[in-house]
This record gives sequence, structure tokens and C-alpha cells, in this order.
Amino acid sequence: MADGRLVIGTQRYSSWSLRGWLSVRLAGLSVDIDVIPLAGGGKTTALKTLSPNGCVPYLEHHGAVVWDSLSIAEYCAEQDPDLWPADRCARAVARSISAEMHSGFRAVRVALPMNLGRDKRPPAAGFDEDVLKDIARIDALWTDARTRFGQEGAFLFGAEFGNADAMYAPIVARFLSYDVPGLSDSSRAYMQAVCQHPLMREWYDQAAQEPEDWYLDVYESLA
Amino acid sequence: MADGRLVIGTQRYSSWSLRGWLSVRLAGLSVDIDVIPLAGGGKTTALKTLSPNGCVPYLEHHGAVVWDSLSIAEYCAEQDPDLWPADRCARAVARSISAEMHSGFRAVRVALPMNLGRDKRPPAAGFDEDVLKDIARIDALWTDARTRFGQEGAFLFGAEFGNADAMYAPIVARFLSYDVPGLSDSSRAYMQAVCQHPLMREWYDQAAQEPEDWYLDVYESLA
Ligand SMILES: N[C@@H](CCC(=O)N[C@@H](CS)C(=O)NCC(=O)O)C(=O)O
Ligand SMILES: N[C@@H](CCC(=O)N[C@@H](CS)C(=O)NCC(=O)O)C(=O)O
Repeated sequence: MADGRLVIGTQRYSSWSLRGWLSVRLAGLSVDIDVIPLAGGGKTTALKTLSPNGCVPYLEHHGAVVWDSLSIAEYCAEQDPDLWPADRCARAVARSISAEMHSGFRAVRVALPMNLGRDKRPPAAGFDEDVLKDIARIDALWTDARTRFGQEGAFLFGAEFGNADAMYAPIVARFLSYDVPGLSDSSRAYMQAVCQHPLMREWYDQAAQEPEDWYLDVYESLA
Repeated sequence: MADGRLVIGTQRYSSWSLRGWLSVRLAGLSVDIDVIPLAGGGKTTALKTLSPNGCVPYLEHHGAVVWDSLSIAEYCAEQDPDLWPADRCARAVARSISAEMHSGFRAVRVALPMNLGRDKRPPAAGFDEDVLKDIARIDALWTDARTRFGQEGAFLFGAEFGNADAMYAPIVARFLSYDVPGLSDSSRAYMQAVCQHPLMREWYDQAAQEPEDWYLDVYESLA
């Protein structure tokens, strides 16, 4: 019997769910995974009564109730401290960039929604200034973390995929889907490592098996 | 000599700074406090080169660099674990509501900006539907935390003011400034306790001593 459950949204689209799911899987929590098809734009009625914030990811584990990807990341790190870097200064930066993702990069999130079915196609209208600013900042923080703390490992803070990588995994998926310009070689190598990680492969595979009637016009018809 | 420094913005307005400052003070870090007058709307040039995300609060402590209020809260809780509740389930909820604040309540944040000089005056145009929805959700989560985990203490998770209280302190300040409607008795009592806390008194006093040429029309002229 499982120790609880993790509720996520449509895997093709639900970027916050991907973050929570990665932390839960990395920590090895034994939970059932329930997928709820999203209606798009905060309109999924099934979520209103399920999760205190009306959103996924939502975790129940051994009597604890946890909502929001970042508190799930912290909950999972209590179970498996290796999800954050061991070094105090590296850990402070890992948490800072995770929080920056959690509260920011609105331009990228709005203009380039996650759609795992979209492959290497820039938006027809190109990238506006705010999106390019977000991309440049993400490129800089990835490169900076890897240079200062990555010890030439494949991920942001070394050889292991951790919570900070989980927070940025949906950004990697978007950057690949929309073929964004201007990334450093370090960032390109990092993106390859992320999308080849076994958990990312598993998520992409599951997303590819979702029924087409879960697809949402608002994302599929983006030019 | 101090162990580092905390950079904050105009205390009258800077809600995220208040959060970070509270966590730092609660944890008892010995740091210099530098105040930078905000230009409003993300336009403070002094911040662009200071802090990796171009924002305050920004902390340097014993060689660690931490930006963003929520990662500062976690950094401080490493120094003083009492900043989060000791009980695993309570802690999961404390982190979840903190993350919910960190990424949400946009309507309240935009319509009711923090201005410690404003006292009990509703917006001339009233409260729109989205703002009322945010207020109702905050009222519910405060009441729920206090009922389930507060053990009749004055704060969200008991007798001690912790990180979750720090995350909501600027909301308390706004709810008082704009005299918001519809709060439960529990929430009203909580708000009194928060604004009477010695650290909040200290912050309000410092804000009241800021020079008037730091005041920003965009906030002072709100109807
Ligand atoms: N800050 C939250 C954001 C969660 C969120 O916005 N989730 C979206 C799906 S990715 C959602 O549940 N939306 C509700 C809906 O589409 O009905 C987190 O980090 O978990
Ligand atoms: N997610 C950040 C938000 C920080 C933030 O937006 N700070 C504002 C002041 S309260 C700021 O520095 N704005 C830059 C400016 O006004 O120039 C946090 O939690 O610390």
C-alpha cells in the first residue's frame, strides 16, 4: 500500500506538476499518482475542492498535506536531504534560484506555455523584449550556478539532479519546444542532460500517451 | 563586526523586504541593515547591479549570498529551526501557505500596495471581485492554520511568531491600511497580535522616520 498520493495535471502541459512530481520521485516517496485533466486558465473544477489553493501539484503523505511545488520540494528534501546541495553557500543559491523561478519569469511562462507535443518551433511572432530578458536571466543563472558550484557535473549543482533542476525542468522543456535563441554552450549542454534524465524520459513518455481529448486548443493552436 | 548585511527597500512600501527582515531578525543574525530607497515599479537602478534578481531583500551572511524573501526564510530556519513549526504536518502547511503567498495573491498585491502611512481607509473604488477572493482565501488559511495548529497561541502556528507569520505580516499591514471587510474574529485577533509584535513596532517606527522625499506619488496618491 502506498503512503499517500500525489495529484498532478495533464502531463503535456502542467509545468508545476512536473516540478512536484520530480521532487517526489527523486526522494523516492511511495505515493499513488492521480492525474487530473486540466481545463486551462485556472478553470479545472475538480481542483477547487481538492487542493487548498485550487492547484496542482498536491501531495498527501503519511498524514501531511502539502500544496505548491516549492513546499513539496522542501517536504521531499526533509525526506532526502540530498535534494539540495550539501554545501551551505551552494544550498543558499539553489534555494534562491528556485524561489526566483517560483515567483518570476512571468513573460516566459505566459508567452511560452509548456506543451510537450511542440518540437523546436519558435513562436510565429518571435520573442518580445520581456521574454528575451527572462531568457537571458535564466541563461545567466544556470551558467553561474554550474560554473561556481557544478563541479563539471551535468546538472546545476553537480552530478546529481536535485530540487533546483526540478524547478527549471519545465523551462528546459519550453526552451526546447520553442527553440529559444541566445543560450550559452553550458546551458545547451545542461538542457540535453535534463531532457535525457530517466525521470524526464518517463514523464515525456507518459505525456505522449495522454488521450487527445485532453488537449487544449489554447495551447495547441499557438502560432 | 557584523557577519554580513541585509539590503532592504523603503520600509514604508517594501513588503518583501519586511518579510526577509523579520526572518533575519527572528533568527538573530548579526548583519548590517542597508536601506535603498525604491523608485517603484522595478525601476531602482541601484538594485540592478546589487542583487542577482535585481530585487530586495538581499542577504549576505558568512559568505553565503541569498536573494528572495522565501529563500532567506529557509536560510534563517537553518540557523534557527524554530522559525518553522516543530510538527511535521504543521511545518508542511506552514511552508505551503508561505509558498502560496510567495507566488500568489496578485490581486491584493496590485490593488492594495503596502503603505504604512495609510490608516484604515478603503480604496475609493471599493474592492473588486478578485481582491475579495484573495481576501477570503487568506482569511480561510489563517483561520484554518490557527484552528488546527495554533494551540490557541496568538500566531498562525502557536505562541511564537515564525516564518509563516513573516510571510503574511505585510498582508496584515495592508488589511489594516485599507480596512478590508469580511475577516473572521480569529483573523482580526491575529492581525492585532502581528502588528503589536515588537519587531513589527520597530519596523513601523523606522518607516515613520524615513525622509518624505522617499515617498512615491504612485502609492501616496492612491484614492
Ligand atoms: N505556485 C503553484 C502554482 C501551481 C499552478 O498554477 N498549477 C496549475 C497547473 S500547472 C493549476 O493547477 N492550475 C489550475 C487550473 O488550471 O485549473 C505551485 O508552485 O505549485
Ligand atoms: N520574489 C521576491 C520579490 C522581491 C521584490 O519584488 N522586491 C521589490 C520590492 S518589495 C523590489 O525589489 N523591486 C525592485 C524595484 O522596485 O526596483 C521576493 O520574495 O523577495
